[in-house]
Amino acid sequence: MAYLLEELAQAVGGELRGEGRLPVDGVATLQAAGARQISFCANPRYRKLLETTRAGAVVLSPSDADKSNYAGARLISDEPYLAFARISRLLNPEPVARAGIDATAVIAASAQIHPDAEIGPQVVIGEHSEIGRGAIIGAGSIIGSHCAVGAETRLHAKVVLYDQSRVGQRCILHSGAVIGADGFGLAKDGEGWLKIPQLGSVQIGDDVEIGANTTVDRGALEDTIIAEGVKLDNQIQIGHGVQIGVHTAIAACTGISGSTHIGDRCTIAGGTGIGGHLEIASDTFVAGLSMVSRSINQPGSYAGIPLTDSTTWRRNMAQLRKLDQLAQRVRTLEKQSGNGKADHE
Amino acid sequence: MAYLLEELAQAVGGELRGEGRLPVDGVATLQAAGARQISFCANPRYRKLLETTRAGAVVLSPSDADKSNYAGARLISDEPYLAFARISRLLNPEPVARAGIDATAVIAASAQIHPDAEIGPQVVIGEHSEIGRGAIIGAGSIIGSHCAVGAETRLHAKVVLYDQSRVGQRCILHSGAVIGADGFGLAKDGEGWLKIPQLGSVQIGDDVEIGANTTVDRGALEDTIIAEGVKLDNQIQIGHGVQIGVHTAIAACTGISGSTHIGDRCTIAGGTGIGGHLEIASDTFVAGLSMVSRSINQPGSYAGIPLTDSTTWRRNMAQLRKLDQLAQRVRTLEKQSGNGKADHE
Amino acid sequence: MAYLLEELAQAVGGELRGEGRLPVDGVATLQAAGARQISFCANPRYRKLLETTRAGAVVLSPSDADKSNYAGARLISDEPYLAFARISRLLNPEPVARAGIDATAVIAASAQIHPDAEIGPQVVIGEHSEIGRGAIIGAGSIIGSHCAVGAETRLHAKVVLYDQSRVGQRCILHSGAVIGADGFGLAKDGEGWLKIPQLGSVQIGDDVEIGANTTVDRGALEDTIIAEGVKLDNQIQIGHGVQIGVHTAIAACTGISGSTHIGDRCTIAGGTGIGGHLEIASDTFVAGLSMVSRSINQPGSYAGIPLTDSTTWRRNMAQLRKLDQLAQRVRTLEKQSGNGKADHE
Repeated sequence: MAYLLEELAQAVGGELRGEGRLPVDGVATLQAAGARQISFCANPRYRKLLETTRAGAVVLSPSDADKSNYAGARLISDEPYLAFARISRLLNPEPVARAGIDATAVIAASAQIHPDAEIGPQVVIGEHSEIGRGAIIGAGSIIGSHCAVGAETRLHAKVVLYDQSRVGQRCILHSGAVIGADGFGLAKDGEGWLKIPQLGSVQIGDDVEIGANTTVDRGALEDTIIAEGVKLDNQIQIGHGVQIGVHTAIAACTGISGSTHIGDRCTIAGGTGIGGHLEIASDTFVAGLSMVSRSINQPGSYAGIPLTDSTTWRRNMAQLRKLDQLAQRVRTLEKQSGNGKADHE
Repeated sequence: MAYLLEELAQAVGGELRGEGRLPVDGVATLQAAGARQISFCANPRYRKLLETTRAGAVVLSPSDADKSNYAGARLISDEPYLAFARISRLLNPEPVARAGIDATAVIAASAQIHPDAEIGPQVVIGEHSEIGRGAIIGAGSIIGSHCAVGAETRLHAKVVLYDQSRVGQRCILHSGAVIGADGFGLAKDGEGWLKIPQLGSVQIGDDVEIGANTTVDRGALEDTIIAEGVKLDNQIQIGHGVQIGVHTAIAACTGISGSTHIGDRCTIAGGTGIGGHLEIASDTFVAGLSMVSRSINQPGSYAGIPLTDSTTWRRNMAQLRKLDQLAQRVRTLEKQSGNGKADHE
Repeated sequence: MAYLLEELAQAVGGELRGEGRLPVDGVATLQAAGARQISFCANPRYRKLLETTRAGAVVLSPSDADKSNYAGARLISDEPYLAFARISRLLNPEPVARAGIDATAVIAASAQIHPDAEIGPQVVIGEHSEIGRGAIIGAGSIIGSHCAVGAETRLHAKVVLYDQSRVGQRCILHSGAVIGADGFGLAKDGEGWLKIPQLGSVQIGDDVEIGANTTVDRGALEDTIIAEGVKLDNQIQIGHGVQIGVHTAIAACTGISGSTHIGDRCTIAGGTGIGGHLEIASDTFVAGLSMVSRSINQPGSYAGIPLTDSTTWRRNMAQLRKLDQLAQRVRTLEKQSGNGKADHE
């Protein structure tokens, strides 16, 4: 699939400087791009590479377009990374469903499979489940009963949807994702534990992406809800009854305990742990490897164990790196004032 | 499935106040419950909801029963959450196996499948494995050779048991759980590593629940043992040769390194890391996101990185939040005493 | 399979003291070993067990061989753990492929399966993929199109390779591993996110082991590369475009963000988080539950949140355990000097 550079410029709304009739059939890094490929520079760190790149064209910010020595065709955009993403999507479109059901799939009699959907080998679909137009169900995926998969949604190989899970349109679920397993609901019963039936389901909105081996538990009494446009990376754990607001993005290895509600447009970096029954305000940013054990009522940037605003965290961490020195300084002061005691050590 | 309220009261041993002939066919939250549903109040925070709930009946503690304005039928219990759990289990029983082997399953000739067991589509069961009475093996689960699955145990879709894994009765294993993969056993061999054969197996007791995408490695020389009544949440990693005592519950995303022995009735919150070759005393509580790098010899409540008792951890965290201020205060003292030096900064 | 002790001594290059004609058919711990089994003592902690072991033979270091009261046959090695590992591999060899394709496997017409490879039940292999001589593809594994699996590599049950993934020779991939899923590449687009096509692939060298439920994302524009001899434990997350150098070993639950390059022969303990776009020098050791947020330019031993050299980390942690006490001591000093204020508390 090839486009003329002027077609790409028009498609993404960028200003073109250079040969508009240049055919472009792929994207690449500044180092690797060739004459028929387009690259981008969105980070001043990489501006130097513009001098040596052999890319046929480059997407640039207005300031980079003026300052750099790059001599090839330019496509100028205020948001060069976004413009590049749009171009890459034009050149590398998502696959389209090849309508049909593989002979090895096991489909319940009452399941409704849209005739334009693609059902791969070894797929299992339970009673009363519905698969929408243009959906792709990857090999070995297992869909329980009373589930729904929206139009143009793609489940990669080996996704599991437990009974009653509902997935919106244009979603992407990666391999090993498990949607709707029981939440960790237990009542203390003498020395042991009594399992509490998990009666809620999982509701996933449109345009959601869920990473490989991520788990989203069904609700205990109320549904777990992943709103429209949410992006979840790999190996994330979402507890029962969690709600995640629209366009929130969460990076890998983060865990969210039960009944916590996360607002809209939040960004949560990787490896973070979020406690249960909390409220996180919309437009909150949480840095990686943080521990959120209280609700966050004000949007802002937070970090650390324990969580503070990011500025305070950076300052505290700078001191934590030399805490042993600080303790020695206190000991020195104590000796000078006559109250230093060996029992502090 | 419906019960009369008086039947439920009798089944869970609670005191009934109100219309015993009330039919109850489901459970719900105080906010969502309707006239034929029973709810519960186990947390004083939610007591206010009793004033507005439309639930047909509510399970309450004796004190809430007296204090609240709730006018409907009451079922009074000293352990309202446990009583509610029992009622929910009566109203929402675990599914019963539909005896039979799906035509797409691949069963080794020497495997012994109880005639009352349910074997789902695309299941694979290896030589000499035994599946007990009333067990349910979910679609796409793979069971190796010489395995055992006890009576009434349920494997959800896509569980893997490596060879020689043994699972007790009435267990629940969720999708993506991998039992018996090789432990991380390596010997340094020049610049590289030599893999050490992992010869132990995994032994899982009765009434154990294992969450989605949790991994339990087989032992190197001795078995990995998960005792009766243990509850493991999602995405937990259990290293080779670990032993976990009866009724211990572990929340999501916790990792336990090889050869560590955890006692009975412990509770370990989510995201905790536990080192190898440690002993954790019975009845120990460890808070979330903690790092356990030494053995715990005394039962108690522990938290933090590094691990301390929970009270100390809370105090230390309160100071860590303002560590930069503390350092500035030390600097002020140093200046006053004449020994403040720029080289501390 | 049994060997004479003298055959084992010769195979691993150890010095034999005792009955060389002793038949040995297994390995075991010092406590569990019987007369036809060989054990080892590589840790002074366990030297006492030599007095009571019933093992037919023991692999020992020269110093343990002289000092202990053990009276049985000895195999003396400067690297007793490595010698034991070699002996265990002789006695417990990896399984050999049983050539053939299971009748339930779905193999694309253009896929090339070596006639000596073993393809298990319910396996799916896509167009133009190649499976090498003696490879074993476990039940339920899904291999996309244009993939390669090298000779004698074993995929356990339920491994997923996305399109274009390439795995070297003699590798072991454990169940639930997902290779080549999309990286977490998003461009901010107004209130939401635009997915960036992930066009790189995953390249895995020879003799690599990948643990259960570990995920290795494909590159965004350039490939993700796992070099020869790398060992990855369970539930590790490798972001897009990461490169890991030869013989690096990484323990469970570690996450590595996109585009980070890790050198050769590194050891990274469990639960560690490593940020994106970093460089980690060869021969670096990182302790468990650490946070690596800057590049590491010098080989060495590092630990902690924030990361420091391990010695500093240990000292700082010792002070962090009593930070509240330190703060009280500062308060005392302030009171003595007349500048203690309630507003610090």
